Amino acid sequence: MEQRGPVLVADIGGTKMAGGVCDPDGTLLTWESVPTPADADADALWSALESLLAGVLERSGAADLAGVGCGCGGPMRWPEGLVSPLNIPGWRDFPLRTALADRFAAPGMPVRLHNDAICMAAGEHWRGAGRGTRNMLGMVVSTGVGGGLVLDGRLVNGASGNAGHIGHVVVDAENGPLCKCGGRGCLEAIARGPGLADWAQSQGWRQDEPDATARELAADAALGHPVAQAALGRAGRAVGIAIASATSLCDLEVVTVGGGLSQAGPLLFTPLRAALAEHARLEFTRHVRVVPAALGQTAGLVGAAALVLRAQRYWAGD
Amino acid sequence: MEQRGPVLVADIGGTKMAGGVCDPDGTLLTWESVPTPADADADALWSALESLLAGVLERSGAADLAGVGCGCGGPMRWPEGLVSPLNIPGWRDFPLRTALADRFAAPGMPVRLHNDAICMAAGEHWRGAGRGTRNMLGMVVSTGVGGGLVLDGRLVNGASGNAGHIGHVVVDAENGPLCKCGGRGCLEAIARGPGLADWAQSQGWRQDEPDATARELAADAALGHPVAQAALGRAGRAVGIAIASATSLCDLEVVTVGGGLSQAGPLLFTPLRAALAEHARLEFTRHVRVVPAALGQTAGLVGAAALVLRAQRYWAGD
Repeated sequence: MEQRGPVLVADIGGTKMAGGVCDPDGTLLTWESVPTPADADADALWSALESLLAGVLERSGAADLAGVGCGCGGPMRWPEGLVSPLNIPGWRDFPLRTALADRFAAPGMPVRLHNDAICMAAGEHWRGAGRGTRNMLGMVVSTGVGGGLVLDGRLVNGASGNAGHIGHVVVDAENGPLCKCGGRGCLEAIARGPGLADWAQSQGWRQDEPDATARELAADAALGHPVAQAALGRAGRAVGIAIASATSLCDLEVVTVGGGLSQAGPLLFTPLRAALAEHARLEFTRHVRVVPAALGQTAGLVGAAALVLRAQRYWAGD
Repeated sequence: MEQRGPVLVADIGGTKMAGGVCDPDGTLLTWESVPTPADADADALWSALESLLAGVLERSGAADLAGVGCGCGGPMRWPEGLVSPLNIPGWRDFPLRTALADRFAAPGMPVRLHNDAICMAAGEHWRGAGRGTRNMLGMVVSTGVGGGLVLDGRLVNGASGNAGHIGHVVVDAENGPLCKCGGRGCLEAIARGPGLADWAQSQGWRQDEPDATARELAADAALGHPVAQAALGRAGRAVGIAIASATSLCDLEVVTVGGGLSQAGPLLFTPLRAALAEHARLEFTRHVRVVPAALGQTAGLVGAAALVLRAQRYWAGD
């Protein structure tokens, strides 16, 4: 059933938590983002989220909510909504879905929660760069590399709500770097921001600055630093190879690429497209479009709203 | 709508074409396989198929068909059913779906056609080794490497009906062999039977026999030939890496592996499982089950029947 009222939405990551109110067409009436108190205990984390959401709800003037939607960093037990975000140690099996329902929802009102990368993909598909397509991978390339899949016009959940994890597609099985997951040569191990910075430092970039970031790397690359450019080229190639694999396996029309690293523009996208063209050669793969994500920081909030407002397409969890 | 009568089914590849009649529960009442006259022209190919199907239909005694289902080698225009099988040069944009409808179907009767690997996956999911699961990749490792995907309990088609093409997932982007598709390091380039035999010959196996086959390679491996065993090990590792990637991307519960090479048993599956264990390390990926396919040569026929008999799950083409 399509819902007609506004939706209270949240998007919770290790760095920031965002809250907002989304109208039935997917436009955010208001939203706000605050730093995540990542070292806080479970109660303090919940208090921070609760006051953020109470604030935006009041400011929006919204009445008669249609529901509550939330994206959160994984892993989580889905669809139960017990969250254990890697970068928020204070929450381990925290019952976020239930807590949101108890505090913000009238009885029977839908309260839905999914992985943050999946919400971002849903947002880009509903209202962003994937609009109007039926087969899309929505990627985030940032501190981690994640994503969500829409196939045959529906959000894919998979066995445990983790479909879309392109960060652990294997790009260089034999010679790639070790990944935090324990594997070798995963896309994330190569293309995540900190991994890029590590590689660049191993090649001589800012070796005297142990805290140099991927943001500085991208800035140096834009200024012409050859090692910084090579690092972005290496990441772009890895992303392109992983997209080629995903396109063959899932017969995609479009891939949206968001997250901090996508801001690097052609320094990332040119090698990405070159590697993709080398490896996606079948008639049905060679026309896949790779486009920058369109909704920026709000994709996750809009996607969280989609779980409630466009449930037939984006929600199969109940 | 679930159909209640028997279904006339076909499965057409470059080597063999099979026809049969399937009862509403997915049991083949009769079936037969004949060599494909692969060098014949379009009319002669159709005549061979037509007489095969007329024969099994008569022999089955079936009346009141519920429909016609067909798997065919790709590529094809789907769901229109214009087929151009790579290994059957006489058919180029041959209107197989229409031809089957005109000859075998009453007006309004469903006639449905899909890629052969997708039908095999549908068959293994409905009645074979993937039964009872909701997230499955069905693979065929043979002269080529193909597959089909079932996610969230439904067959995935993708943008052009080509979802499941695991053969072109990239396993070794930089150092892998060139693939017929034009790419490098695709799973198929490494693990297809002829590719295996080529590699083994380059390492000294049966170098004086240019026509030595993968079947002979598997036989020699079973007898302890070290190069033949190494070739199967290399293929198994490649399959395991591709399965790890697919499991991360699609959050799979089970992968069924069929096709000629899967007959090699532990010589293929042991290195496969080792590579999978190295590369599928996340909590949600490490428990994926890899099992031999259960339906053998009949998987494609049973899956073709599923397009008609279990349309809600396996057919979205009309």
